[in-house]
Amino acid sequence: MIPQQVIATKRDGGKLAPGEFALFLTAYLKGQVADEQMAAFLMAVQFNGLSTRELDVLVKVMLHSGRVIQPGGDWPGPRVDKHSTGGVGDKVSLVVAPLAAEMGMVVPMMSGRGLGHTGGTLDKLESIPGFETRISLARFDRVLRKVGCAMIGQTDEIAPLDRRLYALRDVTATVPSIPLITASIMSKKLAEGLDGLVLDVKVGRGAFMASVEDARALARAMAGVGAARGIAVAAVLTAMDQPLGSAIGNALEVREAVACLEGGGPERFRALCVELAAEMALAGGLVSSLGEGRSRAEGALAGGGGMERFERLVAAQGGKLDPARGDLGLPSAPLFKTVSADRDGCVSGIDPLALGYGLISLGGGRKSQDDEVDPRVGFVMKVEIGTRVAPGDPIGVVHAGSVDGLARGVRVLGEAVTISDEDGASPLPGVLERIRSPG
Amino acid sequence: MIPQQVIATKRDGGKLAPGEFALFLTAYLKGQVADEQMAAFLMAVQFNGLSTRELDVLVKVMLHSGRVIQPGGDWPGPRVDKHSTGGVGDKVSLVVAPLAAEMGMVVPMMSGRGLGHTGGTLDKLESIPGFETRISLARFDRVLRKVGCAMIGQTDEIAPLDRRLYALRDVTATVPSIPLITASIMSKKLAEGLDGLVLDVKVGRGAFMASVEDARALARAMAGVGAARGIAVAAVLTAMDQPLGSAIGNALEVREAVACLEGGGPERFRALCVELAAEMALAGGLVSSLGEGRSRAEGALAGGGGMERFERLVAAQGGKLDPARGDLGLPSAPLFKTVSADRDGCVSGIDPLALGYGLISLGGGRKSQDDEVDPRVGFVMKVEIGTRVAPGDPIGVVHAGSVDGLARGVRVLGEAVTISDEDGASPLPGVLERIRSPG
Repeated sequence: MIPQQVIATKRDGGKLAPGEFALFLTAYLKGQVADEQMAAFLMAVQFNGLSTRELDVLVKVMLHSGRVIQPGGDWPGPRVDKHSTGGVGDKVSLVVAPLAAEMGMVVPMMSGRGLGHTGGTLDKLESIPGFETRISLARFDRVLRKVGCAMIGQTDEIAPLDRRLYALRDVTATVPSIPLITASIMSKKLAEGLDGLVLDVKVGRGAFMASVEDARALARAMAGVGAARGIAVAAVLTAMDQPLGSAIGNALEVREAVACLEGGGPERFRALCVELAAEMALAGGLVSSLGEGRSRAEGALAGGGGMERFERLVAAQGGKLDPARGDLGLPSAPLFKTVSADRDGCVSGIDPLALGYGLISLGGGRKSQDDEVDPRVGFVMKVEIGTRVAPGDPIGVVHAGSVDGLARGVRVLGEAVTISDEDGASPLPGVLERIRSPG
Repeated sequence: MIPQQVIATKRDGGKLAPGEFALFLTAYLKGQVADEQMAAFLMAVQFNGLSTRELDVLVKVMLHSGRVIQPGGDWPGPRVDKHSTGGVGDKVSLVVAPLAAEMGMVVPMMSGRGLGHTGGTLDKLESIPGFETRISLARFDRVLRKVGCAMIGQTDEIAPLDRRLYALRDVTATVPSIPLITASIMSKKLAEGLDGLVLDVKVGRGAFMASVEDARALARAMAGVGAARGIAVAAVLTAMDQPLGSAIGNALEVREAVACLEGGGPERFRALCVELAAEMALAGGLVSSLGEGRSRAEGALAGGGGMERFERLVAAQGGKLDPARGDLGLPSAPLFKTVSADRDGCVSGIDPLALGYGLISLGGGRKSQDDEVDPRVGFVMKVEIGTRVAPGDPIGVVHAGSVDGLARGVRVLGEAVTISDEDGASPLPGVLERIRSPG
C-alpha cells in the first residue's frame, strides 16, 4: 500500500480495492500515514465520494478501532437508538429515550454536543443540576439495566478512528461530505450493539442538509450501512424549516421536553416524538405496524410512564430535578423580554439558522471548543409558520444573562420572524419521507 | 483569516480575496496553518483550480519567500533561461545553455533531478567526473560572468515555500495540477532575474501532460504569469511521443549532447536545440526574428563555439571531460547488448514511458529520494518512428551494470518498440505549437 497511490486513485475517481483501503486506514491509526495525507484523501472524498464498498470498509475499520458491544445478551427488550443529524430546538432525544424505555425498549443513547448552529443533547442534559454525562461504560450499563435508557457522550473507547478523523475534518473543511458523515454516525451507532436504529435526518435551513435530495442521499447511505450489518434502520426525513417546538436554549428545552412527557408541549413537537418512538418500536420488532407503535407511544405519554422513566434516568445519572416547582429546579435567566409583532399579518418564516447562531451570541452555545455554555439563556417562540398576528401580539420571549445579551437577543428574534400580508403560509409537514431497511 | 474558511471557499468553487489568500500562505510559512490544512487546500485546488488572480498571489508569495535576483545589472547580454517540463532522453539543456551563451546571452540555469519516469539535468551533469551542481549563489554568479552560462540545482535560498509545497504535494498526490505546476516553475524562474524565458512544454506519452489541451493550458498559464511580471516568455509545445534523440541514460546523454555540440547527433534532437536557442534569442531581444535566431544558433554550433563554451562550463564547475577520448572520459557500463528486429516492417511506436521506467530498473534513475544513480546505464536507440527494419536489423543497444540488468533492459527495449506492417508511420512534428507573451 503506497499512500500516494491510494490518494491518487480517489482523486482520479477510481475505485479502491477493499484490502488496500483498509490498510491505508489502519496505517493512519498506527501513524504510518500522515495527517496531511489523510487530509488530502478526505478532500478527494469530498469531491468524488465513496462507493458502497469503500464506505463499508471505512465503517468497518472505524467501528473496530474501538470497543464494540455485541448485540443480543440478556436484555429485557430490543436495543434501539435514535440519532438526529442536528437542528435548532431539537430536544426529541430527551423525550423519546424514556418513552421508548417505557414502551419496552432498551435505549443506550450516545449523544453529542452543539455543533455549528445546532444544539446538542449533552449540553441540554448538563443544564440539569448534577447530571453526569461522562460516566464509564460499566455505569452506563448499570443505568441501562435499571432504567431501560441511559445517556452519555462519545467515549474514547468507542470508534477512536472516528474521533481522529472528525477532528481532522473539522480543521480541513471536509465536514459536509455525505459518505464521511454516514461513516462517522454509523460507526458509533454500530458500536452500541443495536437491534434497531432510527435516524432523524433534518432537512431545511436549520439543518446541515438544506435540500431534500442531500438528506435523502444521506438517509439512504446510512440505511444501506445498517442493512449490510443486519441492523434494522429507519431514516425519517423531518422538517427543519423552522425551530422544532417553541424552546431554543438548554434549560428551556429541558422544560419543554418535560412538558411533553407530562402530556403537554407544542403539538408538532409532540407529534414528532410519537412518530419517532413508533419508528423505534417498529425497528426493534416490538410492534408490527407504525399505527400500533403510535398508540403505544401515546399511551406511554398519557399514562405518565414516560415522565416517570425520565425522572429515574435523571436520578440514576446524578441529576436533581424538582417537578413540583414551575422551573423544575433548573437554572433560569435573570432577564427576559417579550418581542411583539409590529404589524398585522401571517408568520411566513422563522429562521432557525439565525436563532441557532443567536443562541450562541447569547452564550447558550459555543464559538470554540473550550467555551462554557450558559444553560439559562435562549428563546421561547410564541408563534409558528402560519400563525396570524396583530400589532402587539407576542411573537417570542428572549431569556438572557446580561442587558447586552438581551438587546442582541431581541434584535435576533425580531429579524428571524417574517410577517407577510398573504395568508395561509404553511410549514413543511413534520415527516417528509421515510427510508427503511429491514436489517 | 480562518484557514477552514479559505479551504472551504476553494472547495466550493468560490474566489479567494487576494489579501486573505496571501495571509493563508504566509501563515503556512510561519507554521500557523498546519500541513494537513495545506494538503486539503492543495487537493481542493487540484479539483477547482486557481483563478488568474489567485495564481498571481501564489506565485508572488512563493517568489518572495526567498532570495530574488533583480533583473538588469551590468551583464554582457540579456539573461535568458530555458526550462523543460520533463521528458525521456531530454538532454536539450546541456546543448542550449552553452549555445545561447555563445550567441551572446547570459544563462543562469537552475535545474532539477529526475522525477517519476523523466530524467533530470542535474543527474546528467553529475555523470561528468567532478562536476559540482551544489555550489553557492556567489560562485554560480562568478561562473556565469566568466562563461556566460552556469548550471546548478535549486538552493534553499530560492523560493523556500515552493520547496515545502512541492514536498507536501509529492506525498499527497497533488502534483498534476496545472496552476500548482505553473506556480512551482514560475516562482523559481522569476527569482533568477531573467529578461526572457523559454518553456519547453513536452506533450505525449513520455510527458507529464499527455494531451495537447493540457500542455496548452499549462503553457498559457506560465506565459500569463511571465507577462504579468514583465518577462518575455515563449512556451513551445514539443513532441514526447518517442524519446528525444537516441540516448536515454545519464552519461550516454552527455555523450549525445557533446556529439550535437560538435555538429553531429540525431537530426530531430539537433533541430529542437536550434529551435529553442532561437526562441531564447528572440525572448531575450537579441534577434528580431526566429529565422535570425536559427541562423545564429546554427552558426554557433557549426563554428565549434558552443562546444568550446561547454568545455569551459564543465571546467569552471570542477568537471573533467576528455574530448579526445571516444567515451569523453565519462563512466561506461561494463555490459551492453544490441537488440534486433525480429520481423520486417516499419517502426510505428517507441514507448518513452516504458524506457523511462526501464532506465530506473537499470539503476539509472531513482525509485525513492535517497537512491544512488548509476550514471553508466541506459539505452541507445538505433531506430525512430517511421524507420523501416528487416529481421536482424539493430533497434537499440542496452547498457547495463549487471547481467540481470542487461536481461531486464533487453526485455524493456524489445517491448517498447512496436513494428507494424503498414508503412509510413510518422512521429509528431518536433514543435507542435508556440505561445508567446511579449513581457
